[in-house]
Amino acid sequence: MSVWVYPGSFDPVTLGHMDIIRRASVLCDKLVVAALHNTSKNSRFTLQERTDMLRTCTQGMPNVQVESFGGLLVDFAHQIGAQALIKGVRNGTDFDLELQLAFLNARIGGDLETVFLPTGAQYAWISSTYAREIATLGGDLRALLPSQIIDFVKANINR
Amino acid sequence: MSVWVYPGSFDPVTLGHMDIIRRASVLCDKLVVAALHNTSKNSRFTLQERTDMLRTCTQGMPNVQVESFGGLLVDFAHQIGAQALIKGVRNGTDFDLELQLAFLNARIGGDLETVFLPTGAQYAWISSTYAREIATLGGDLRALLPSQIIDFVKANINR
Amino acid sequence: MSVWVYPGSFDPVTLGHMDIIRRASVLCDKLVVAALHNTSKNSRFTLQERTDMLRTCTQGMPNVQVESFGGLLVDFAHQIGAQALIKGVRNGTDFDLELQLAFLNARIGGDLETVFLPTGAQYAWISSTYAREIATLGGDLRALLPSQIIDFVKANINR
Amino acid sequence: MSVWVYPGSFDPVTLGHMDIIRRASVLCDKLVVAALHNTSKNSRFTLQERTDMLRTCTQGMPNVQVESFGGLLVDFAHQIGAQALIKGVRNGTDFDLELQLAFLNARIGGDLETVFLPTGAQYAWISSTYAREIATLGGDLRALLPSQIIDFVKANINR
Amino acid sequence: MSVWVYPGSFDPVTLGHMDIIRRASVLCDKLVVAALHNTSKNSRFTLQERTDMLRTCTQGMPNVQVESFGGLLVDFAHQIGAQALIKGVRNGTDFDLELQLAFLNARIGGDLETVFLPTGAQYAWISSTYAREIATLGGDLRALLPSQIIDFVKANINR
Amino acid sequence: MSVWVYPGSFDPVTLGHMDIIRRASVLCDKLVVAALHNTSKNSRFTLQERTDMLRTCTQGMPNVQVESFGGLLVDFAHQIGAQALIKGVRNGTDFDLELQLAFLNARIGGDLETVFLPTGAQYAWISSTYAREIATLGGDLRALLPSQIIDFVKANINR
Repeated sequence: MSVWVYPGSFDPVTLGHMDIIRRASVLCDKLVVAALHNTSKNSRFTLQERTDMLRTCTQGMPNVQVESFGGLLVDFAHQIGAQALIKGVRNGTDFDLELQLAFLNARIGGDLETVFLPTGAQYAWISSTYAREIATLGGDLRALLPSQIIDFVKANINR
Repeated sequence: MSVWVYPGSFDPVTLGHMDIIRRASVLCDKLVVAALHNTSKNSRFTLQERTDMLRTCTQGMPNVQVESFGGLLVDFAHQIGAQALIKGVRNGTDFDLELQLAFLNARIGGDLETVFLPTGAQYAWISSTYAREIATLGGDLRALLPSQIIDFVKANINR
Repeated sequence: MSVWVYPGSFDPVTLGHMDIIRRASVLCDKLVVAALHNTSKNSRFTLQERTDMLRTCTQGMPNVQVESFGGLLVDFAHQIGAQALIKGVRNGTDFDLELQLAFLNARIGGDLETVFLPTGAQYAWISSTYAREIATLGGDLRALLPSQIIDFVKANINR
Repeated sequence: MSVWVYPGSFDPVTLGHMDIIRRASVLCDKLVVAALHNTSKNSRFTLQERTDMLRTCTQGMPNVQVESFGGLLVDFAHQIGAQALIKGVRNGTDFDLELQLAFLNARIGGDLETVFLPTGAQYAWISSTYAREIATLGGDLRALLPSQIIDFVKANINR
Repeated sequence: MSVWVYPGSFDPVTLGHMDIIRRASVLCDKLVVAALHNTSKNSRFTLQERTDMLRTCTQGMPNVQVESFGGLLVDFAHQIGAQALIKGVRNGTDFDLELQLAFLNARIGGDLETVFLPTGAQYAWISSTYAREIATLGGDLRALLPSQIIDFVKANINR
Repeated sequence: MSVWVYPGSFDPVTLGHMDIIRRASVLCDKLVVAALHNTSKNSRFTLQERTDMLRTCTQGMPNVQVESFGGLLVDFAHQIGAQALIKGVRNGTDFDLELQLAFLNARIGGDLETVFLPTGAQYAWISSTYAREIATLGGDLRALLPSQIIDFVKANINR
């Protein structure tokens, strides 16, 4: 059984993330979406909130599972028996950065593979950072975030 | 059953191609290596020779199958029931070029997916073009080509 | 009055070109679409055919004019009193290539400016090269070419 | 009447910014230089100081106007009736980053256009960040900043 | 006598840095490894610790000298009579960033040259940042750091 | 004694090439400019003409020597006792391409090093290809080519 891990901060999950989740879930038997319990880098939403939003948005996707992890990503991947990480890539600059991480994870993770999917053209401009900025300024989030989480994000962005 | 297509000229197949074939074959149920019957772009080796070399080098890989195709790649992918194309990518410049092809094939191929694997660091400098140049000049091919095809390439490169 | 030049081979004009023409024509007072009379690089369609297709597709755009040129682009730009060239750019790799041309044209063309517009995300995968390949293989051209020229391209691609 | 917006932190305005302002002001009827009232990202100079420096440096440019804005850039652009944003781009890596912003602003800003000008080769190494670092260390600023603001920057950089 | 400067934070020195030091030291008569006394950017290890680690790792390299500097890099380079800076570059994105610094240092440093060496393929994934993250999480550092400093880094990373 | 090789087609030598030759000759003890005797790729000028132009332009540079080579570049480098190749690089896209060649030459050339110098900002737009195009069209070559060879290039470009 092929198991892939889609790691990220998901602070919050965007329509771009959802596009990768949907497409990756077709290509493997089980997709584990893994929210990073980042200690150094502050996130705007708590780990609990970020995984709750992910679970809300992936309801009805039978082979998608939401988890969180706190240590090395390669250790988490091994614990759940994953063969590959999955990453969405926008452009060459993105790829150059991700390539370094892919080699790192292959080297310290016993040939753990990284599979890249191109970000869908209609989602390439979306990022969690922009979504947070626009939410903070009260802008329209419908083109950036799944409809299920927009009210929650709006209500909690400026707390 | 997941079926992926690895398209290329394979003129000739290199150690870089073999690395992608080996790694991709672990990630899907069946990998079809598809040699392009290019009419406009001249190849140094015939289609028969290129598929013969591929078959020699993929012997013992039970879920790898070698084929050739002549029309649109997306039509070939659909005929064999593939969900995705697989491409090896060296760097950001490579990725920018391949991204355009991926969008093309998704658009004209009914959401046919393209999956990218990073070229292994130790193979990133290899290309069929360099292999042909070095072969023509009588250089050492052992770091570029699978051992099984080196004698054939040397014997036929300057005919 | 601001006059901009959009140079290219337009072999044939694509929906990507049309997107740039439409958007650039809003930003300047007069847009001159200039088809290159390339002597060294063979084009599939004649200069007459390429400008005919452009004129068909830009009918009803009052400030767009179709011309052709044969010498240095900067000389043509000066003859028609243009202040700037306009180019569509897909990604960073495209930009690096075009930047070199922009500096060349600024240097030999008396500070002739080059203005870049990002290719629309939904058109970034389109190129005349791909359109010709798909046309040659009998594929569906509706996502790549303006509807007005599809029959002509199909009828003449394999002559 | 074509109105373009050149947004930025201008912390402080550099010779690179001035080159874009001069060249963009030739291409449109009115250029609004818009200093960002950034709340999250700290600036070294106050909004008042940054717009004062911009006004000092753009004196004598009749169609250039200096403003500041605090909310979404697209809202500001609409308020002043602008058709396009203008950005200077150094290289492909710069472009990939800016392209994402351009698509964002087009999507949430009702097709607000982004026009790119290549940074002049002689200015491509300049940034406000470097100017602040060199000023902090007491280095020579004449190659980086407009002469009118050098004394002010030197006198206030280490307060 | 050719003197080159290899500047960096070396927080801590990695196997990637050591590869550049070894290769650059063959190409010039004297190589000065210069640790940046960064005041604004916090380093995890003190300047003393960073230069101590560098000295430990470069023992037995007769033409390599370890120093530190606090002001402008170009001033330091002139003081020690260097003709060139040396930088390791991983890929095109890295290069675009470094190019800007190279032009800066040439412009404010009286034509001080910057020489680039490609990072060795087997080291391209290594960075001090990743080394610190892995050390913090208790991971295996042997593929990232020189063996002589691993115990020290492990013992002091979480203080 | 450090010996570096600067390989190329030099068809013809440009002001960009001359800038690299001048700067590289300061960094090593002996610089060998090596014109490629390309058999497959047609050059506009003969090997004799290209080396003659190089010799004319490097007169008075005591540690610069002009040679030609026909086989593998690494074999030529070894024959003349060179430790490194030198390449000029314009931008990240250039670098990605050259990096592949650098790894190739290191791998098949016994750790032969490749040293990169950034193309001077004022020369980054120049290429032999553009020079030939402009010469063919009768344009002004003074910003692209060394003055000593302009008459020769003009007289022979269209033969």
